[in-house]
Amino acid sequence: MKLVIIGGVAAGTSAAAKARRNDEAAQITIFDADQDVSYSGCGLPYYIGTDIEEREQLVPRNARFFKQKYNVDVLTGHQVLAIDSQAKTLIVENLATGQQFSDNYDKLIIATGAQAVRLPIAGSDKGNVFLLRNVVSADRIRQKVLAAKPETAVVVGSGFIGMEMAENLTARGIRVSVVEVAEHVMPALDADMAVYVADYLQQQGVELIVQDAVTHLEGTPLVNKVVLKSGRELAADLVILAAGVQPNVELARRAGVELGPTGAIQVNERMETNIEDIYACGDCAESYSLITGKPFYRPLGSTANKMGRIAGDQASGGNLTFRGGLGTGIFKVFDLAVGQTGLTEKEAKREGYEAVVCHIIKPDKPEYFHGQEMVIKAVADRVSGRVLGAQVIGKAGVDKRLDVLVTAITFGAKAEDLFHLDLSYAPPFATTKDPVMYAGMVLTNALERQRGLITAAELKTKLEQGEAVQVIDARAAKQYQAGHVAGAHNLPQERIREELATLNPAALTVTYCNKGVTGNATQNILLNHGFQQVLNLSGGYSQYSRQFKIKEDEDDRA
Amino acid sequence: MKLVIIGGVAAGTSAAAKARRNDEAAQITIFDADQDVSYSGCGLPYYIGTDIEEREQLVPRNARFFKQKYNVDVLTGHQVLAIDSQAKTLIVENLATGQQFSDNYDKLIIATGAQAVRLPIAGSDKGNVFLLRNVVSADRIRQKVLAAKPETAVVVGSGFIGMEMAENLTARGIRVSVVEVAEHVMPALDADMAVYVADYLQQQGVELIVQDAVTHLEGTPLVNKVVLKSGRELAADLVILAAGVQPNVELARRAGVELGPTGAIQVNERMETNIEDIYACGDCAESYSLITGKPFYRPLGSTANKMGRIAGDQASGGNLTFRGGLGTGIFKVFDLAVGQTGLTEKEAKREGYEAVVCHIIKPDKPEYFHGQEMVIKAVADRVSGRVLGAQVIGKAGVDKRLDVLVTAITFGAKAEDLFHLDLSYAPPFATTKDPVMYAGMVLTNALERQRGLITAAELKTKLEQGEAVQVIDARAAKQYQAGHVAGAHNLPQERIREELATLNPAALTVTYCNKGVTGNATQNILLNHGFQQVLNLSGGYSQYSRQFKIKEDEDDRA
Repeated sequence: MKLVIIGGVAAGTSAAAKARRNDEAAQITIFDADQDVSYSGCGLPYYIGTDIEEREQLVPRNARFFKQKYNVDVLTGHQVLAIDSQAKTLIVENLATGQQFSDNYDKLIIATGAQAVRLPIAGSDKGNVFLLRNVVSADRIRQKVLAAKPETAVVVGSGFIGMEMAENLTARGIRVSVVEVAEHVMPALDADMAVYVADYLQQQGVELIVQDAVTHLEGTPLVNKVVLKSGRELAADLVILAAGVQPNVELARRAGVELGPTGAIQVNERMETNIEDIYACGDCAESYSLITGKPFYRPLGSTANKMGRIAGDQASGGNLTFRGGLGTGIFKVFDLAVGQTGLTEKEAKREGYEAVVCHIIKPDKPEYFHGQEMVIKAVADRVSGRVLGAQVIGKAGVDKRLDVLVTAITFGAKAEDLFHLDLSYAPPFATTKDPVMYAGMVLTNALERQRGLITAAELKTKLEQGEAVQVIDARAAKQYQAGHVAGAHNLPQERIREELATLNPAALTVTYCNKGVTGNATQNILLNHGFQQVLNLSGGYSQYSRQFKIKEDEDDRA
Repeated sequence: MKLVIIGGVAAGTSAAAKARRNDEAAQITIFDADQDVSYSGCGLPYYIGTDIEEREQLVPRNARFFKQKYNVDVLTGHQVLAIDSQAKTLIVENLATGQQFSDNYDKLIIATGAQAVRLPIAGSDKGNVFLLRNVVSADRIRQKVLAAKPETAVVVGSGFIGMEMAENLTARGIRVSVVEVAEHVMPALDADMAVYVADYLQQQGVELIVQDAVTHLEGTPLVNKVVLKSGRELAADLVILAAGVQPNVELARRAGVELGPTGAIQVNERMETNIEDIYACGDCAESYSLITGKPFYRPLGSTANKMGRIAGDQASGGNLTFRGGLGTGIFKVFDLAVGQTGLTEKEAKREGYEAVVCHIIKPDKPEYFHGQEMVIKAVADRVSGRVLGAQVIGKAGVDKRLDVLVTAITFGAKAEDLFHLDLSYAPPFATTKDPVMYAGMVLTNALERQRGLITAAELKTKLEQGEAVQVIDARAAKQYQAGHVAGAHNLPQERIREELATLNPAALTVTYCNKGVTGNATQNILLNHGFQQVLNLSGGYSQYSRQFKIKEDEDDRA
């Protein structure tokens, strides 16, 4: 059996290792046009920053390693030019010598990865404009940063890579501006969660410009200015284009391999393409959502690794299958962790779910163990009660809550299931009820309708449209005076039982406190006293004021 | 509706809050003999150490809070002396005045908690011998520590509280010895995991004495010496008895409430006792295992909180039910986190499962992000493939992996499911394949039998009994020379393909490397070459040498 793998980063090397474990006799060859294989693509930004000092930390393995450990032949600097799926042959070019030769395969795995999107911007061919994708491109950026000591940088795009570059360039003492064409930073998040990232970036001295695009880059021979559609001009000694990635599918397409609706290679759960004995995996292939069952494109190291292992298993007689992904992603920007899994609220609505959301603002640990607040936005389906997704942002314990939610969602958890989880508790690690449990409790209450939630955006719209809403601020007078939702009555929760008569039980009522708990208690009291429709503000005034940028004392101006 | 709750710590106050949310009109009263309510019992050791400086951090709420927030009457310093379940009345004593009075209830929730086991040791009534259970007892220990500045302390018992006291007394500059009657520290863990805790304690300067018991305490008026069964004597300016807790069930028992096989109050999933309208919850009640379905006693803050909420819901017309627990526990001792959930290997075997175990030694993050190794011991059932439990020990990321496993086990995960989890990956948070996924992969291989594992204990026994085992050390010669399993052949993995002829394919073969990965690769090569029975050493030489305390270069002495 001769297995050929095209591409040797995450998916390709995983495939090779797994195939060897299954089949000691197979001849296994990896071709990669690049010089580096098996590197941590996700580590690249930190090699430009100060966390990774040595190239070897990023690329710990080489062809020799794969030969010794797995008896796999890795040919770097070898580009596969064409695949003949009838003859089961390849044309390969040795990039160093220019020599071309033919090779054959019994099974072929395409793991050609993805490339950074090159925006068609005039001036982007200049020597201080960079894309980040492989180790060589990171070398170039790093060398420029160390040698030219740029003072200013513009990062175009605010996804994972854009955010990580903003942090790592700042760590090198560079003043960074981030330009995002969408209406908010991290377009993959919901707007009401992205606001936490935006605020934090600004606190860290990163300038964030949204709803604006780069028209051209000025300066000769090097760019020194970035010009935006709005007319704004940004000084730039360095420009990083981080506007996303696209799958490398040309080789496959020319060979007759079908692409899916996402533009990446279409594969089934066995990583098989439409052509017999040709598999695809990693960032060149599409996967599918565990929740919707629909194809999606999630070029993530974790997914690539998984798909690679499955392709390698299948190509060597195994029966491992891909079970669908959640598109789970996390990144760190300075000290903030930002994670997401499953569907956002906007995705859930687009998919036709009756989405119910909650915002939980809770510390990861008790205060006396320096607990730090995190925000969990969880999304559930009103019809089935199932949790559809979550976004978690905070400075500590974010990855834990995200992975618990990932695991729960994978097993089809309903919102009501979260409270029952027997999660680990001790003061150095968590609160007695974990934030994930609170998310479940609040969602469950909301799903029962009687204890419904209203998002800040929904309340704002109602108020702006002049709907009759009785808004009750259940906080202490002092908090109310420092800032509140325009038009809200202040009725501290401990007084509400006495002052029920001052309220209209027939009116649509919205309760809120600072983060949601007392607002919910107030809501319960009103509902128990026969009020017709009472909604609690999700995430309380903390979420509302942040989302609508209300500074203390100024919210009644409008 | 008049609801009376006896006990106002975790379970009692949760019950009250939930009942009020359901029922605005109910009259709700909590009686507690203690002066403090709603405190963090799990925070007590840190109040004796240096993490919690203020008593208020531990006891943030009082009777006034509950009245204002929940309209609940909390009567501290009030002991319920008797329950008449026919008349639905109570006799209550105001401990401050000695006055007794009668009260009545429609629904009664017993949340009387647990007390520290007082060992019948001569001398344990002296003024420097302490039990830790409530805030007042913590006050006393703290005052003694601050005023008398003890130089030495003996902690009797090495469960959660014992370990946390060892850390916190050390933080106060006290030299600590821990005495454990069982054969290893933390008897709730498997012996091969407890060894990590034992080694670490010793590194931190805590003396650990196992398989020994305290016979008596010497010194007048204060204890200054602890005498052990072995004859050893330990200097002690302070003695903490941390030999576990027992449920406070006397009041309930006298009222005719049935106890379960664990000695705690028997309740059903609705927290109902055998007597109508009497519920029990928290540390005085037993719960049951989600895995075995059998009753167990797990006096944990998280469980108490959950049971309390359920009891409060049921007593006020709700239908929340307890779904079984995993007995999840975690503690920190200095910088080491030690967690456990579900069944240990010994418990699984005792319950009749055909337990398959693996030991995974992996960093929580990449090396370049200062990843630190953790050990996961996972237990699965060979028959069903289900994960039954896990123990996780390490310095970082332990709580995350534990909670992911908790969630997976709750949903009935099989070992093979763990690899498929779409856990969050970015270098600051995890490795591409998470340690939990490795645990799943290794367990799955083992469950398929052909790629079986052997534990260090099983191998040691075979070697000691003189069984013919072909043991192959697949590490580099240098590592082998520094220490290896007695009798092992050194055959570095990269040479094994050439030297197959030197091995006996018919013999029972055990492969190992340092932590398991290369041992598994070697195992695969041998199996693929027709070797009959090849087992990989679980956790590799790292686990073996630690478990059997083999120092480098000395393991061939025996």
